[in-house]
Amino acid sequence: MDDDEKLVGVISLRSLIVWPDEAKVADVMDTNLITVTPSDDQEDVARLMADYNFVSIPVVVKDHLVGTITVDDIVDVIDEEAAEDYSRLAGVDVVTLEENPFKSAAKRLPWLVGLIFLGMGTASVINNFEGLVSQASILAVFISLITGTAGNAGTQSLAVSVRRLALKETSSLIKMLMTEVLIGAMIGATAGLTIFLVVWIWKANMLLGVAVGLAMGVAILVANVAGSFIPLVMDKIGVDPAVASGPFISTLSDLTSVIIYFNIAGLFISHFVSA
Amino acid sequence: MDDDEKLVGVISLRSLIVWPDEAKVADVMDTNLITVTPSDDQEDVARLMADYNFVSIPVVVKDHLVGTITVDDIVDVIDEEAAEDYSRLAGVDVVTLEENPFKSAAKRLPWLVGLIFLGMGTASVINNFEGLVSQASILAVFISLITGTAGNAGTQSLAVSVRRLALKETSSLIKMLMTEVLIGAMIGATAGLTIFLVVWIWKANMLLGVAVGLAMGVAILVANVAGSFIPLVMDKIGVDPAVASGPFISTLSDLTSVIIYFNIAGLFISHFVSA
Repeated sequence: MDDDEKLVGVISLRSLIVWPDEAKVADVMDTNLITVTPSDDQEDVARLMADYNFVSIPVVVKDHLVGTITVDDIVDVIDEEAAEDYSRLAGVDVVTLEENPFKSAAKRLPWLVGLIFLGMGTASVINNFEGLVSQASILAVFISLITGTAGNAGTQSLAVSVRRLALKETSSLIKMLMTEVLIGAMIGATAGLTIFLVVWIWKANMLLGVAVGLAMGVAILVANVAGSFIPLVMDKIGVDPAVASGPFISTLSDLTSVIIYFNIAGLFISHFVSA
Repeated sequence: MDDDEKLVGVISLRSLIVWPDEAKVADVMDTNLITVTPSDDQEDVARLMADYNFVSIPVVVKDHLVGTITVDDIVDVIDEEAAEDYSRLAGVDVVTLEENPFKSAAKRLPWLVGLIFLGMGTASVINNFEGLVSQASILAVFISLITGTAGNAGTQSLAVSVRRLALKETSSLIKMLMTEVLIGAMIGATAGLTIFLVVWIWKANMLLGVAVGLAMGVAILVANVAGSFIPLVMDKIGVDPAVASGPFISTLSDLTSVIIYFNIAGLFISHFVSA
């Protein structure tokens, strides 16, 4: 502390032990200060201490020392923040595990029931295309394959985005979006081509393969971009991206996937009307 | 160390500073040793240090000190293990983030393409019920709602199980299974009842509501138990539960859900044949 009671340096416990008896505090202290303030996010402080391998860090308000945070505190913080990110991906709170099965069910239900209403949107889209399905019931066969695969791709891209946000490894929004479009296009093309071949061989109907493969490719591209874009945008505009959970992304992707699927299938409908 | 070079006690840095000059090492050291061995799992060591708030822990082989682990090492371990659990839930490796979009796509594709083949199983189940769909195309409307909701429930229960495993909070397998059956039954009943009412009102067909609601309830129960049971059993038999990822559970649950849905719908088919 200087005369004004401001923090001017820190001394490590190790240097206290090894310094010569005649040394002054000013000689051994480190004045190259890295400090935090009481209003800093605990996750940011944890990340800072992990990155610098600090054992403790001073907390200051206007250069006055008001406390210290030690590394054993941040172990708990990192653990809890990781559990929060994990909860987000699963659509269930795993930070406070519940022993009582009734309370446990009560904690999981709001998410599920909320998503059922989003899922009803998907059902009403399929309902609008019921005429198409009654002409070609074969179309029903591939609904869950397309929605499921796009949902899986969206979950992957969500997880990568959330991880980047946690590590503060985010560059410009446009650049990240372009990268995800490219990744989505490559993954969509590969998965679409695979399913085109499988359906063509299985059903001996090349155009059905084209429709299903094309729908899957486009659905994956859209899910991939949404899974990455939604949490990044929410973070940029300062909203907690908690709502962008894995189940939310897959349920949203069900909706976009069936829109894409039935619109593409409609273009080819004359080629696979049921016998 | 004693005469035999065995570790007999530890002294904390703090007690080194505050002890009186005349005190002997034997007076200030703590002989109530908690140690680890080089073959211990790094996650277990991290959990031990976090629980006891240790700043460092001795590593011993047959009572001989071979090294120490400090708390700043375990911050990285906890961080990495959390990222691994997270990767597992998402079906993508987020421990090592990839900058190159081509490599990134290559990392995500094996999971997706593998799951497409599991999804083909679901498609072939629906294919077996195509006769049912061509009689009542309305059945196609609810496929993604049922598979999606059951998949979400399975992901929630998977996440809770994996978290319990990480925190070593696992009791007997039978007791946990019974608890998940109870939770699944409550969640399934609530979601099934919700969707029964929605479908009944929307389609003015009570029996269609019964079929869809019942199918959703049973599909959720099965997904819930599978999501919880698969990682727990894998852990009990000593297999790394890495394969029991979120996308795997949802894709597996798509398969069980359509089997349940079409079998139940088949019982009621005469009541909702298309006009």
